Amino acid sequence: MSPRKSYIATDVDFNRDGKQIATLRLPYSRNTSGWGIIPIPIAVIRNGSGPTVLLTAGNHGDEYEGQITLNNLVRTLEPRHINGRVIILPALNFPAAMAGRRVSPVDGVNLNRAFPGDPDGTPTQQIAHYVTTVLVPMADAIMDLHSGGYSMHMIPAAIIYRPNTAALLDRVIGAARAWGCPLGIVFDDLGERRTFDAICRDLGLLKLGTELAGAGTVSVEALAIAETGIWNLLKYFGVLVAEPPALRHPRPQPVPMRLTEITGPEAYVYATGSAIFEPNFALGDAAQAGQIAGWQNYLEEIDRDPVPLRFHKSGMVACSRGPGRVDPGDLVALVVNDIP
Amino acid sequence: MSPRKSYIATDVDFNRDGKQIATLRLPYSRNTSGWGIIPIPIAVIRNGSGPTVLLTAGNHGDEYEGQITLNNLVRTLEPRHINGRVIILPALNFPAAMAGRRVSPVDGVNLNRAFPGDPDGTPTQQIAHYVTTVLVPMADAIMDLHSGGYSMHMIPAAIIYRPNTAALLDRVIGAARAWGCPLGIVFDDLGERRTFDAICRDLGLLKLGTELAGAGTVSVEALAIAETGIWNLLKYFGVLVAEPPALRHPRPQPVPMRLTEITGPEAYVYATGSAIFEPNFALGDAAQAGQIAGWQNYLEEIDRDPVPLRFHKSGMVACSRGPGRVDPGDLVALVVNDIP
Amino acid sequence: MSPRKSYIATDVDFNRDGKQIATLRLPYSRNTSGWGIIPIPIAVIRNGSGPTVLLTAGNHGDEYEGQITLNNLVRTLEPRHINGRVIILPALNFPAAMAGRRVSPVDGVNLNRAFPGDPDGTPTQQIAHYVTTVLVPMADAIMDLHSGGYSMHMIPAAIIYRPNTAALLDRVIGAARAWGCPLGIVFDDLGERRTFDAICRDLGLLKLGTELAGAGTVSVEALAIAETGIWNLLKYFGVLVAEPPALRHPRPQPVPMRLTEITGPEAYVYATGSAIFEPNFALGDAAQAGQIAGWQNYLEEIDRDPVPLRFHKSGMVACSRGPGRVDPGDLVALVVNDIP
Amino acid sequence: MSPRKSYIATDVDFNRDGKQIATLRLPYSRNTSGWGIIPIPIAVIRNGSGPTVLLTAGNHGDEYEGQITLNNLVRTLEPRHINGRVIILPALNFPAAMAGRRVSPVDGVNLNRAFPGDPDGTPTQQIAHYVTTVLVPMADAIMDLHSGGYSMHMIPAAIIYRPNTAALLDRVIGAARAWGCPLGIVFDDLGERRTFDAICRDLGLLKLGTELAGAGTVSVEALAIAETGIWNLLKYFGVLVAEPPALRHPRPQPVPMRLTEITGPEAYVYATGSAIFEPNFALGDAAQAGQIAGWQNYLEEIDRDPVPLRFHKSGMVACSRGPGRVDPGDLVALVVNDIP
Amino acid sequence: MSPRKSYIATDVDFNRDGKQIATLRLPYSRNTSGWGIIPIPIAVIRNGSGPTVLLTAGNHGDEYEGQITLNNLVRTLEPRHINGRVIILPALNFPAAMAGRRVSPVDGVNLNRAFPGDPDGTPTQQIAHYVTTVLVPMADAIMDLHSGGYSMHMIPAAIIYRPNTAALLDRVIGAARAWGCPLGIVFDDLGERRTFDAICRDLGLLKLGTELAGAGTVSVEALAIAETGIWNLLKYFGVLVAEPPALRHPRPQPVPMRLTEITGPEAYVYATGSAIFEPNFALGDAAQAGQIAGWQNYLEEIDRDPVPLRFHKSGMVACSRGPGRVDPGDLVALVVNDIP
Amino acid sequence: MSPRKSYIATDVDFNRDGKQIATLRLPYSRNTSGWGIIPIPIAVIRNGSGPTVLLTAGNHGDEYEGQITLNNLVRTLEPRHINGRVIILPALNFPAAMAGRRVSPVDGVNLNRAFPGDPDGTPTQQIAHYVTTVLVPMADAIMDLHSGGYSMHMIPAAIIYRPNTAALLDRVIGAARAWGCPLGIVFDDLGERRTFDAICRDLGLLKLGTELAGAGTVSVEALAIAETGIWNLLKYFGVLVAEPPALRHPRPQPVPMRLTEITGPEAYVYATGSAIFEPNFALGDAAQAGQIAGWQNYLEEIDRDPVPLRFHKSGMVACSRGPGRVDPGDLVALVVNDIP
Repeated sequence: MSPRKSYIATDVDFNRDGKQIATLRLPYSRNTSGWGIIPIPIAVIRNGSGPTVLLTAGNHGDEYEGQITLNNLVRTLEPRHINGRVIILPALNFPAAMAGRRVSPVDGVNLNRAFPGDPDGTPTQQIAHYVTTVLVPMADAIMDLHSGGYSMHMIPAAIIYRPNTAALLDRVIGAARAWGCPLGIVFDDLGERRTFDAICRDLGLLKLGTELAGAGTVSVEALAIAETGIWNLLKYFGVLVAEPPALRHPRPQPVPMRLTEITGPEAYVYATGSAIFEPNFALGDAAQAGQIAGWQNYLEEIDRDPVPLRFHKSGMVACSRGPGRVDPGDLVALVVNDIP
Repeated sequence: MSPRKSYIATDVDFNRDGKQIATLRLPYSRNTSGWGIIPIPIAVIRNGSGPTVLLTAGNHGDEYEGQITLNNLVRTLEPRHINGRVIILPALNFPAAMAGRRVSPVDGVNLNRAFPGDPDGTPTQQIAHYVTTVLVPMADAIMDLHSGGYSMHMIPAAIIYRPNTAALLDRVIGAARAWGCPLGIVFDDLGERRTFDAICRDLGLLKLGTELAGAGTVSVEALAIAETGIWNLLKYFGVLVAEPPALRHPRPQPVPMRLTEITGPEAYVYATGSAIFEPNFALGDAAQAGQIAGWQNYLEEIDRDPVPLRFHKSGMVACSRGPGRVDPGDLVALVVNDIP
Repeated sequence: MSPRKSYIATDVDFNRDGKQIATLRLPYSRNTSGWGIIPIPIAVIRNGSGPTVLLTAGNHGDEYEGQITLNNLVRTLEPRHINGRVIILPALNFPAAMAGRRVSPVDGVNLNRAFPGDPDGTPTQQIAHYVTTVLVPMADAIMDLHSGGYSMHMIPAAIIYRPNTAALLDRVIGAARAWGCPLGIVFDDLGERRTFDAICRDLGLLKLGTELAGAGTVSVEALAIAETGIWNLLKYFGVLVAEPPALRHPRPQPVPMRLTEITGPEAYVYATGSAIFEPNFALGDAAQAGQIAGWQNYLEEIDRDPVPLRFHKSGMVACSRGPGRVDPGDLVALVVNDIP
Repeated sequence: MSPRKSYIATDVDFNRDGKQIATLRLPYSRNTSGWGIIPIPIAVIRNGSGPTVLLTAGNHGDEYEGQITLNNLVRTLEPRHINGRVIILPALNFPAAMAGRRVSPVDGVNLNRAFPGDPDGTPTQQIAHYVTTVLVPMADAIMDLHSGGYSMHMIPAAIIYRPNTAALLDRVIGAARAWGCPLGIVFDDLGERRTFDAICRDLGLLKLGTELAGAGTVSVEALAIAETGIWNLLKYFGVLVAEPPALRHPRPQPVPMRLTEITGPEAYVYATGSAIFEPNFALGDAAQAGQIAGWQNYLEEIDRDPVPLRFHKSGMVACSRGPGRVDPGDLVALVVNDIP
Repeated sequence: MSPRKSYIATDVDFNRDGKQIATLRLPYSRNTSGWGIIPIPIAVIRNGSGPTVLLTAGNHGDEYEGQITLNNLVRTLEPRHINGRVIILPALNFPAAMAGRRVSPVDGVNLNRAFPGDPDGTPTQQIAHYVTTVLVPMADAIMDLHSGGYSMHMIPAAIIYRPNTAALLDRVIGAARAWGCPLGIVFDDLGERRTFDAICRDLGLLKLGTELAGAGTVSVEALAIAETGIWNLLKYFGVLVAEPPALRHPRPQPVPMRLTEITGPEAYVYATGSAIFEPNFALGDAAQAGQIAGWQNYLEEIDRDPVPLRFHKSGMVACSRGPGRVDPGDLVALVVNDIP
Repeated sequence: MSPRKSYIATDVDFNRDGKQIATLRLPYSRNTSGWGIIPIPIAVIRNGSGPTVLLTAGNHGDEYEGQITLNNLVRTLEPRHINGRVIILPALNFPAAMAGRRVSPVDGVNLNRAFPGDPDGTPTQQIAHYVTTVLVPMADAIMDLHSGGYSMHMIPAAIIYRPNTAALLDRVIGAARAWGCPLGIVFDDLGERRTFDAICRDLGLLKLGTELAGAGTVSVEALAIAETGIWNLLKYFGVLVAEPPALRHPRPQPVPMRLTEITGPEAYVYATGSAIFEPNFALGDAAQAGQIAGWQNYLEEIDRDPVPLRFHKSGMVACSRGPGRVDPGDLVALVVNDIP
């Protein structure tokens, strides 16, 4: 049986030189438009025979710095800047991005848990399938921009996945250093089969991710990192051959990247009740195993002592809870460790 | 006609020495409990004949530092610390606080636009009425703790309302300095009749407010300000007569308060479309009238130039938008000016 | 200023002999029908010059036995049975009854907290106003049928309000005995101004209520009580002059009514957390002050001991929680005491 | 006590010559923007001392032809066209218009049942109050554009309210003829106190309304009527002194207006069940009292004969049900009668 | 492995002569009925050994003319009218039909994108599977009745799918002519694998579809087409052997069918923003490539010129947008071309 | 291809002696916690080499007696009581249990229709997969505790599935007698492939179920059955070797179990309309085929006779409708028959 083909169509010609701005048309028959589509914005900028770089943001809708940075890049990057091809999707999961939510409101699916996707599935599953079968096979290098999103604060970090070879890992770490965040985190996804990373690992692809600030907000600092970083990356990936235009969010001299890793499940601290989480640390603090990470405050029982939550291991706190209220299982802290 | 009485009852005896922790019982007949109540937590700590201080948080449910600070104060403040009476309500609009939302989910009413309240109205209106007719008349001084909430980032600030006399204004500013925020904002509510401040102005009461950080998150820095500040205030209000216990969130040496004001509607910058707001400033920056405050990015039209929003007047940016997505009329920036 | 008139209209002629089945038309301009109405079913059965009895159910939409009983009465009660007038509204708050919810889904208002109503208010407020200004003034005696509803189990009981005179109280208790429930509860509404009872007290009217079983379900036992009782009441009220037709739900010999009262707020036990309530009693049990009424089980903390809730006073348990899950302020038990 | 003032502010100077496009700023503190506003678009075009005409659409959000027509008028009407002042609000209830719903999604209130409004009420009540106290007092003539909305099909009609004097009625009918719909309906609002019409009647104002097509859709025919009509009306009201620019939706020769009235409640036919309504007529048909207007089809009982609904009086059918499904009380047909 | 069997059961005996009206019972364990079913209405009318015709409506719940027509046919079609078997399902996706929504409210699935279905899937997927494995295999000819639904206006049209042989295409076009719409559209579904058509193409089945008017409303004209057409079709399919009974909605002389096709993606015009769509055409108009199809009006920016949307190709406009408001990707116009 | 592994992790060591209380961590990336988990509570109590018993409740979230009983068992059962291993999950579908709903609110999936599950599916599908692949393979005997839930009243009954061998059926019936309900029902699931029972049948496992009371409420009687029964079962399963501690809900002398079966689809009575169901029976009554089970009352048509629903076969009524309102397809009665 031949593989089932995606229903997603586009007027973009991926092999044409020049700059094209258009949409991917995903047919989606819904209550509000029986023969409607989901129009996913895409830009293709091509000049000559150099490598192809795929840039995506809006994988999660509530992570904004990447969406803004790529939206600006669409208008500032010109064919003359490059040798090769840059494919830009600033709002990969368009319904989620328009709603400002991590998960798509049209099917409740998290795009980054929907890979490799399904051409006959829900819209988000179809997007994952199109990325897997159409976009990724064209790419020599990939950058997928994330931020902490509504639920998390992050130290701006390059997210380094673990490919199957040490050589490739070196190249990904090199990309991370080019990207320019103060922190690099080598991420063990514990055998996850449903992420963008997972399909890149299967294919042995050069792919970088990032997590920039968060809590569903936008910071100028993170915008400056992303805008600077994206031009640096295009250069690292070998596609940029001219000077970038003047930046919108110029950046002070960046610090060198501190390379760390998540060592396993003991790095995570989760809420155990429905309460207000009172943190006992700030991002970047050194945590000690057994130390109190924070307390759960119960307003319906103000005579109850707040319940402490403790770090399970020592390290630096790289991520903390966004919203003040928590429910059981919400992440409240994440600890990373330097790679020797 | 005699004034209508509140249905809210409590087992607390406001005139008894000692420490009582209980609830206000607001009868609320609902789908899920026909003869149920809303139990609003309250603590009354009394010792002798000194002044009465009323402390409230959770006026808005998504503003957490105050709720945490008062929740901790309930357990750490003892009768021996005081001469007088301290009435503490860490979750004044209890349904809103439990939901972590500004506005009460049970009636859609914003408590701070519901004053002076209505004893026969919705639950939030009944709370406002109880505050107005029962709690406020007992108080010599009032502190209502707010933070920026889900939609706003704030420089931690004391919020100084404009009472009807200069003498009282001086006392409120004095309280603000005791509170210890880096910023004080004299607030012109433009004739608003529905706020906690409005009823205090009518009565000529010593009342302070605060806005601490925000975006619906909790920061240790703001917790440290609030915890330190609340003890300072109790002293300023003349009710604290002993040393406070060891603090949970000790604070580095505070900076002196910069006293500013909001000069009028031109201090506010609002979004004009449904878009992602890309800020062009950080909190504390000096803004110039006419300068771009940020841009609205339209993901559904990536070939459209982002639409700039401009500052209408010069000053320091004291407040910025929380969530990345905006809709028409959302506040994106607020400028304050030093009081000469 | 002359009193504002209700917008509610009807084709019923309240002064015509015979049997009329029609609707009250409440104009309600809504998203789904711009010039639509809410059609509240009404039957008027009249024969001669005897007294007028007003019978209502569906004041709360999730209380079914009364709705069924009056719906059947509409078809079985004929002019030849009576001397006088019987006005029957089986679904007084029609939107709530159609939704099977206590509170109206169209405005979120609880009809029995909306009296005396407002002719320019929301639909539920308009219904209250029509009852107050049109229906009640025609009535010599009133029966409003309730059940426990979704949130409560009740021992089937006659609910006896406290009128302003002892003579009238005697007549109401007489009506309660005629009604035939095993339990009668004299109800102190603690100064409530917004109930059907409150407006009857102001007018000195003969009015009875009932609470039949509950948990939002329907029991044949309660149906038998209601069907038998309604004919008995019509007789007691002096309007029934012929034998009732064969009953649909014949009733075994009823027990005499035990007359009790609610003595005050200490009769109620409320939940204090979000948990599963594990009862320690059955309806009708004798409770002792201080005894455990039940426990709150926390599934998110299975190593925490369930939290006991205790009776505040001794008496018979007349009401218990319906749904297994509770939130703070939900009623879990109610204790009544015999009237000596 | 002096009347309470509206919180609504604007940068528009109503007394300045020229063309101003701005917003009314209604302060609305909500979950998604604590210090946000509702920005209601407004245009003021003024030239000299002629009369003032107030033009509004978007009173109901799902009625589009008026919103489009006024939106286009804002850009095509220039000071040089007029002697006097034209105030245009294409989206009077802005939140309802942005949502495309009759009723405001922010407070569930129908603007046209909220007059005369309340300055301390919900946003829709505040809009009504501003119209009543600020806009209407400036106006010599008023046109409020409606369409059938989601729930109704209408023959395009001028809606003629009944003022208190015959002379004024004549002027309103004259305005209706100038407006140019094929149908004019004299509307008896049965004593309604909460509509835009009601406050105009109290003030003896020249005010016209319209209902254009409907079912929540937009038709070019109705757009042509509205675009032509609005220029005609400006002339009739004495403010237009120059030739209109070329029209976007030119109109074929209009037919003369047929003048009719609604004679009372018997003109309306309502659904009695939750079903699919199968019409037995088309708009404009002559109906006979007693004739079947349509049937209710019950898909859950396909062996039940559809239930007929009948006309209560004879006349021409001017309005019919939009959506196929109906619930009890939804309007399915409205009959009008020629005025002799 | 043998194919998995459907859980759907019925008391209907498909092989019994006579007329049976019953339900398909789809077991669906839900919050509101743990051991409940979805009862899908079905009628089977059989007499002798002629062909089997399968008639379905309510594939989409907001398309009413077909549901009404088949609901009436169930009661008017008798065994004596036919030689063969007619299987009628007026509400194929029963939950969607009862809700009046295109997509099933119980699982969010669009039945016509759920084929060939899954016996262990959600309810809608189970319905698709039952159609595929039980109903379709019994059928010699199939008619599936659609209308435009809430989101679209259509010229009443026969929808002609592209079977795999020219001979079969001729028979389908013959059926379309018998059906009697003014328009026939040969539909290219662009390789769609999930529709009712797709499974018929795989099996080489005689199947016709229709789209009748729309916007979620019901028109007598479309009812007349459908009622006349269904009897014509039964004759064309060779199952009708007697005269039909008197029609409920008699039809004026029909016009001959104009045979057209959709030539590809360029026939569709989609919205690009959230706005009000102002059409520049009426159904049936001749469109020219490049011509403005309509404009997007932005009420939040009334000083912005409405954004034009253009036709991509010339042809006749067969379909237009229903609701006035649009979002990105909503269909606003569809152009068809005559088949030479 | 090797089978895909579950993402669910835990700190519990299933092979360690002693008592462990912990959670299963199901990674669930959601809007409110991007890197969060679902923490499913689990207790493992082990002592020596005896058999393993798996005890589960909260398969459906609105069935409380089992959740309470196992929650208490976690704290009362000690290693010294047993020889072997007891694995207890009081809230198997944790999100459903916390919400008090049958179906999980996070994915809309009913756990007991999700077997054998999918490790890459939604959270509920992942739970089913973990039960199937990790928990069940460890178990020698299984008890899954259910109650009627929100929608059903049940006579407390042991639910006996039909394994593939008579010998195993005898052992399950033996377990049912040990469990101690007044009723045992042999359940024919009509080929269902998606239940916990179905996977046990495939494996030939000793498994018992129960249905205890219901309507979403909690009864002390059912608690007494469950608490007594669970200790009896542990003994029957051969793992209990010591005396149980004092019971919280001691039980009067139980009656012997009446063994019955459901004979097929004719045992079920379903609602056919949206109405109030008026029952004509009580639980335990003897029903006759053709007898009226109850009536559907239509409040919107009070002049319509209530529609009777009839029993299709004779037997004892074991289950009845919970909520008063019904929709088409809701179960209203279930009849069981003695096994000779």
